[in-house]
Amino acid sequence: MMAAWILLSCAWAQGMRAEDFAMEELATEKEAEESHRQDSFNMLTFILLLTLTILTIWLFKHRRVRFLHETGLAMIYGLLVGVILRYGIPANSYHNKTPASCSLREGPTSTLLLNVSGKFFEYTLKGEINSREIHNVEQNDMLRKVTFDPEVFFNILLPPIIFHAGYSLKKRHFFRNLGSIITYAFLGTAVSCFVIGNLMYGVVKLMQAVGQLTGKFYYTDCLFFGAIISATDPVTVLAIFNELHADGDLYALLFGESVMNDAVAIVLSSSIVAYQPAGANTHQFDASAFFKSVGVFIGIFSGSFVMGAATGVVTFTKLHCFPLLETALFFLMSWSTFLLAEACGFTGVVAVLFCGITQAHYTYNNLSEESTKRTKQLFEVLHFLAENFIFSYMGLALFTFQNHIFSPVFIIGAFIAIFIGRALNIYPLSFLLNLGRRHKIKGNFQHMMMFAGLRGAMAFALAIRDTATYARQMMFTTTLLIVFFTVWVFGGGTTPMLSWLHIRLENQSDGPQAEGQSKTKQESAWLFRLWYTFDHNYLKPILTHSGPPLTSTLPSYCGPLASCLTTPRAYENHEQLRDPDSDLIRGDADLTFTFGDTAITANGASGSGADTAGGSGWSANGKRSGSTSEEALERELDSREQELLSRGTRLVFPIEDHI
Amino acid sequence: MMAAWILLSCAWAQGMRAEDFAMEELATEKEAEESHRQDSFNMLTFILLLTLTILTIWLFKHRRVRFLHETGLAMIYGLLVGVILRYGIPANSYHNKTPASCSLREGPTSTLLLNVSGKFFEYTLKGEINSREIHNVEQNDMLRKVTFDPEVFFNILLPPIIFHAGYSLKKRHFFRNLGSIITYAFLGTAVSCFVIGNLMYGVVKLMQAVGQLTGKFYYTDCLFFGAIISATDPVTVLAIFNELHADGDLYALLFGESVMNDAVAIVLSSSIVAYQPAGANTHQFDASAFFKSVGVFIGIFSGSFVMGAATGVVTFTKLHCFPLLETALFFLMSWSTFLLAEACGFTGVVAVLFCGITQAHYTYNNLSEESTKRTKQLFEVLHFLAENFIFSYMGLALFTFQNHIFSPVFIIGAFIAIFIGRALNIYPLSFLLNLGRRHKIKGNFQHMMMFAGLRGAMAFALAIRDTATYARQMMFTTTLLIVFFTVWVFGGGTTPMLSWLHIRLENQSDGPQAEGQSKTKQESAWLFRLWYTFDHNYLKPILTHSGPPLTSTLPSYCGPLASCLTTPRAYENHEQLRDPDSDLIRGDADLTFTFGDTAITANGASGSGADTAGGSGWSANGKRSGSTSEEALERELDSREQELLSRGTRLVFPIEDHI
Repeated sequence: MMAAWILLSCAWAQGMRAEDFAMEELATEKEAEESHRQDSFNMLTFILLLTLTILTIWLFKHRRVRFLHETGLAMIYGLLVGVILRYGIPANSYHNKTPASCSLREGPTSTLLLNVSGKFFEYTLKGEINSREIHNVEQNDMLRKVTFDPEVFFNILLPPIIFHAGYSLKKRHFFRNLGSIITYAFLGTAVSCFVIGNLMYGVVKLMQAVGQLTGKFYYTDCLFFGAIISATDPVTVLAIFNELHADGDLYALLFGESVMNDAVAIVLSSSIVAYQPAGANTHQFDASAFFKSVGVFIGIFSGSFVMGAATGVVTFTKLHCFPLLETALFFLMSWSTFLLAEACGFTGVVAVLFCGITQAHYTYNNLSEESTKRTKQLFEVLHFLAENFIFSYMGLALFTFQNHIFSPVFIIGAFIAIFIGRALNIYPLSFLLNLGRRHKIKGNFQHMMMFAGLRGAMAFALAIRDTATYARQMMFTTTLLIVFFTVWVFGGGTTPMLSWLHIRLENQSDGPQAEGQSKTKQESAWLFRLWYTFDHNYLKPILTHSGPPLTSTLPSYCGPLASCLTTPRAYENHEQLRDPDSDLIRGDADLTFTFGDTAITANGASGSGADTAGGSGWSANGKRSGSTSEEALERELDSREQELLSRGTRLVFPIEDHI
Repeated sequence: MMAAWILLSCAWAQGMRAEDFAMEELATEKEAEESHRQDSFNMLTFILLLTLTILTIWLFKHRRVRFLHETGLAMIYGLLVGVILRYGIPANSYHNKTPASCSLREGPTSTLLLNVSGKFFEYTLKGEINSREIHNVEQNDMLRKVTFDPEVFFNILLPPIIFHAGYSLKKRHFFRNLGSIITYAFLGTAVSCFVIGNLMYGVVKLMQAVGQLTGKFYYTDCLFFGAIISATDPVTVLAIFNELHADGDLYALLFGESVMNDAVAIVLSSSIVAYQPAGANTHQFDASAFFKSVGVFIGIFSGSFVMGAATGVVTFTKLHCFPLLETALFFLMSWSTFLLAEACGFTGVVAVLFCGITQAHYTYNNLSEESTKRTKQLFEVLHFLAENFIFSYMGLALFTFQNHIFSPVFIIGAFIAIFIGRALNIYPLSFLLNLGRRHKIKGNFQHMMMFAGLRGAMAFALAIRDTATYARQMMFTTTLLIVFFTVWVFGGGTTPMLSWLHIRLENQSDGPQAEGQSKTKQESAWLFRLWYTFDHNYLKPILTHSGPPLTSTLPSYCGPLASCLTTPRAYENHEQLRDPDSDLIRGDADLTFTFGDTAITANGASGSGADTAGGSGWSANGKRSGSTSEEALERELDSREQELLSRGTRLVFPIEDHI
């Protein structure tokens, strides 16, 4: 109905305008106006797509439909609109002359001047196009119009998604499983990349033998494909986990891995692009080029990491009382991290990720309560819109992208390769990790992680970034199909899979006792404990108002420096924490000593109402008892997290987790 | 310090990257990368500018500095950065070859293909450039880089500002002064436009006589200048009014006028552009072309109005319980209004304005409480960022814009003309309005309105939209200077002016009695009352859950239709309102009868704490008494507004006004 109304009123308006401007003779002006109108209309298509998606999501949430996630839905709508644009709309008629073309002997410059009888016009380079595409330029004008510059994904849509992911990582479960997450993310992604790359090279060789390959496809291309397709994005699975309150550790493992391996995949792919052996035979293995690639990887990754973490830490705010200013500042600082990293040649997306993690860990504590809520909501909306936009664009791209190369052999090979790559990532690494972990990653968890290897926004963005060569076009098509398949099939199958694998769903009536038991034997390696102590005693007091004042943690000879760095508020907070009946946080450097006699009374079952239901599974339950330092540390982590939200009061209720 | 850190780390990173990629030979790729890096750096400059502005605003707010508003501050910082970019940074060296150029005989097309030895590259038209500019193309690469496409202002930055303004118009004072506001906005802007246009034509003739004019400057150019410079933007004044709680009616008059005349000015300017007399002598008066222009004005304005209002009304939401979805939907609907209007050839900004007004009036009532807050905050942040960005860009543009034409005669003439134009707008119209108004616009109010004729974002955006010709470049420079002068001088002088004109500042201790008295004699013309009755009895019940159920307002023969259109919630709300001790809203069509025995107990002085201080001046005070229908209507307006916020409870406290 609304669509009909829009079309009607548009038709009326166009008629009116056509009459009004009938006497206008300037063809160029008219063309520019027409083009602007067309652009607006295309943008409107996307907005209406998103609107439709939101309305359907609402319906689904209302009816508790779980087999199709909003991203899957967005893709379906995108597909439908793509079909309409491709087959439903006749080619534009106003614009049917062949494009002007001119020749130059020199290479393309970013700016080109066109001299039309003494008048100069400026043109900017859009990109190279294939010679077979030239005739399409005008023919498929409509389809080309709805094609976005791939950099839009990297510079506008991915940053809020990635930042939000980083910002949501502030979780006890995440830090407790940090070691495993990093192992899966770095080692796992590398394994997956090389396994997939090599398998695909075999497929490519096979295709060459059968004569199915009509363009060039090098080994580095295969590795590049391995890198981009190794970025998992189990957004669908995580949404269901969150709704059903599935196991917290499994959630943390999956979410943490998917967030971190995005960063790894993006840097890995640019390292592979940087691998350019010198000399005549440019597609043989070259050790120096290889080590340079490794150097690029380490350089870009650590540079982005340092930059993101530093900017996250720098975001000091003392702007209490002005939540609008605080929110705006927070937003701008996050964005400037991205731009700063890009300006320095690092990877903005990776920097933004670590900026988000750091901000959640430190800066968040400095914000006023109102701003905390506002920033969270702002990034939530941005993330929501960006994610659904990307997924609906994917649906659209299947029909509107001009250079698809569907190669059945390659596609089938890729499906098998990602399956094998995922298996060789999860199972061997889990085995290795279980050697060191006290709280083992059980078999059914491993199967679930295997199953949850969905591909999503990052793989798509990396694939669409460069579609100039034959190999890249084939990769793009294949990536698109893999995303569709995994989101719909694996995403839709999450709920049955959970029950089939007997993965415990934590609900409120579940005895908190039993839960508390299952959590006490987590990993807390010496490295983590070391970092934790340092963070708690030095970093947090310097960077936030929470934690013990530096005057009590630093050695006495640092006294003047310490009191200079400690804010009055930290003392206040410290006094509040130091009430007699439980010395929750103490300034002592020895962790074992500190937490030997800790007592916390957080009861996971005493929450109130539906709102807190989501969090009950995540909240801890501790009893006053003489316990090991690991248990105490863990409980302290719990309580600190909840303390943050209950602001000074120590009566901790189960709180909702921020996903 | 932060800046130093950034520069340091950047320098380090660039060094590292240069080493890493030393062997890369691809000049084009490197150039593209360099260009991307440069873009990021420029964007970063803007972000840091905004950050700096925010930090300084915070300092000013903290110290209660009122002589400089944030927008004025943003301009100063912009100026400083502009000076640095212009004079402080040496020309780039990597890029010093003259731009490639090629010739064609045909006119420019939007897409151009470049054939470089068999490879095809696609170029898009950026715009015409002056022949004298060609040598600047490379020379001032840096300055050109920080120059935004003017359409960015219209398509990205203005919409949130204008929408927010419309959304903030939901005020009793606004609707009560609707007639006057519309008169000032339409008649006043037209008067101002023609007065300024004619005066400037005199100035141009004078310049021609003295030989100061080196390019063409037609009468339509003068009128165009009159139109763009008639858009007032007293953002500085209004912020101070709001802070000091100046008179509510004066605030509504100023705010309403400034919001509406933006819409009028934008449509007026495009009507003037559309005025193109046929025949040989294209710069003589042509009655048919003139009436066509008038037709264009009416067509575009009413089209945009209808489209905006319709979309605003269409935004039905029953998405309670999912504030994220609701907020996203609200945001998308506002955006699609803009795009829809643009796609149909109307003016998106105007449509967005009326969409905002309509949404605030109807849709807002349908939102859940959480979403209400979220949408308000989202648009607040967007508006804040966009506004400060535009103003800092203005500062920057004074030094970085390439084609300034400073003509002292023109500038002095323009300052005098806008002064006279404003005077001939305010004083005569106020005199005419006072003939009809019961509550006269007093002399000091008129002087204040005269004084508050600041120029801002809209005038700038209209001026920068087209700077191709000599006349337009001179206009742009002049507009920029007028904005600087009015924002700094008039904006800064608001507080002294208020006290000099003895404009009452409403504070809490001010007797609510006296205030109530002063408000009872407002205008409430028959037209307004008619609309009000229709709105209250039919529109509100159809479009929102508030108001009486249609079953009680429609004639009995419409019974089935009425009950079909009425939601269950409306009945509930109605029941709540219908408690025995005061029949606040009744279904009767006769307004006099309905409100003859209304009783409201809202006490403006009984507010609590600092938070409500801002609203006390705006809240009404009524006593149980037999009173005229105007008084009752007005009180009902008050109470309805407050009811909305206190949700069902009738214990109305003074509420903060949403500016």
